[in-house]
Amino acid sequence: MTAETLGHSLLTQFNTEQFRQVTLPFIDTEDKVKAAVQKINAAAAVEANRPIVFSTLVQDQIRAIVREANGLHLDIFDVFLEPLEKELQAQPSHEPGRAHGMSDINAYMKRIEATNFALANDDGGVSRNYDMADVILVGVSRSGKTPTCLYLALQYGVYAANYPLTEEELESGTLPDVLVQQKHKLFGLTIAPVRLQQIRKERRPLGNYSSAQQVRYELRETDKLFKRYGIPSVDTTEFSIEEIASRILDSTGVERRVRP
Amino acid sequence: MTAETLGHSLLTQFNTEQFRQVTLPFIDTEDKVKAAVQKINAAAAVEANRPIVFSTLVQDQIRAIVREANGLHLDIFDVFLEPLEKELQAQPSHEPGRAHGMSDINAYMKRIEATNFALANDDGGVSRNYDMADVILVGVSRSGKTPTCLYLALQYGVYAANYPLTEEELESGTLPDVLVQQKHKLFGLTIAPVRLQQIRKERRPLGNYSSAQQVRYELRETDKLFKRYGIPSVDTTEFSIEEIASRILDSTGVERRVRP
Repeated sequence: MTAETLGHSLLTQFNTEQFRQVTLPFIDTEDKVKAAVQKINAAAAVEANRPIVFSTLVQDQIRAIVREANGLHLDIFDVFLEPLEKELQAQPSHEPGRAHGMSDINAYMKRIEATNFALANDDGGVSRNYDMADVILVGVSRSGKTPTCLYLALQYGVYAANYPLTEEELESGTLPDVLVQQKHKLFGLTIAPVRLQQIRKERRPLGNYSSAQQVRYELRETDKLFKRYGIPSVDTTEFSIEEIASRILDSTGVERRVRP
Repeated sequence: MTAETLGHSLLTQFNTEQFRQVTLPFIDTEDKVKAAVQKINAAAAVEANRPIVFSTLVQDQIRAIVREANGLHLDIFDVFLEPLEKELQAQPSHEPGRAHGMSDINAYMKRIEATNFALANDDGGVSRNYDMADVILVGVSRSGKTPTCLYLALQYGVYAANYPLTEEELESGTLPDVLVQQKHKLFGLTIAPVRLQQIRKERRPLGNYSSAQQVRYELRETDKLFKRYGIPSVDTTEFSIEEIASRILDSTGVERRVRP
């Protein structure tokens, strides 16, 4: 977890228009934190409101210096480390970077391998190495398959392939054998017609591809296919990529190979 | 920010081997939170230690129910919402999902478009649409270019292309014109020889590709190229994909088009 995501989560509870966000990454030495404090104080001197400082700093002495800056300082280690110490009856390491560092080379390798798998098995691509897949996403063009697969790979090391439903499958109402053999791994992505049309128009504004009629037809037939084969699915219309990925893992029970 | 990343950041300060992590996503109704509390209590009844519950729940009444579970409960909204309210003299919305939801359809589109750009411009690929790139990563095979570009796209909507240095460039000590024209966008990835060898061996255990000699030669020539053209670079050996991406943005000043 980064100071950015902490701040973002909390500030979205308020009117976010009013905030100017500045990120000061890699504050891990006294020199760097002192430079950061100067920047915060400089902002405090010219802005109408004093700065709100979000941080995720594991080193006590670094956090203590940030606290001297002119602003409201909110840090997860300030508030949660002590109750955790008491609960676990253990001392925290106070080592920075363990959460994000390369301490786990295996995790890095797994994420890279999973990303390569996603790329090789994208859009029904060349490899079709579905035996190795944890999950195979199925849906029409622009339903969000590729970014979801890549996200599952990069974040969780999950082996995610995807297969785009084509005119052939939609017309015949039949999935190819290569998918039927892996039916237990299939997961469908659906999307509201209006939204799909909007996304497709960004790519190809004219023609059948982004017409209301075509989009409605494809999604209707997709729905029938999913029902016919008993494929679970998620409607991606209202969701971010993170949420789609989480829901797939939640619904399928596929295990994360890496934890973010 | 998710309960998962919150818990992960905090627990890495302790001996993580001792923890069994369970994720209960999408707790947004009273029914779901009550089911979650039952699971927590069931775990508490059979485990030697009581559960530690990390959550990022914006709804007060949902958080209050979790607090009744048998465990140590740590939630960012519990501790940070009140000081923020006071500081901003404003009421939080308490609406769930604003941080991750599709409230910003533009952000979704930008991330998708950036991902498509990264895919089309991967590994010196077909498109080479470098005019549109925010940054072009340069490095030898397996130095981390592809996952970093995809991460920059998915997380930040940044247009990241990448170009693999080949025998030709390394031998001649010269970059192709297509790159020289975009010199200000180039950013290098380097890596320790031992580590690169380890990564390459996962792919091709035998042959020149993963030999110590070849790897050292490629990295030495890469270093000369970067120096000759004044290309800034980061050594990825000790870093996770998140860190490599952050350092590139920090060093280049490329603006995030989307904030996570």
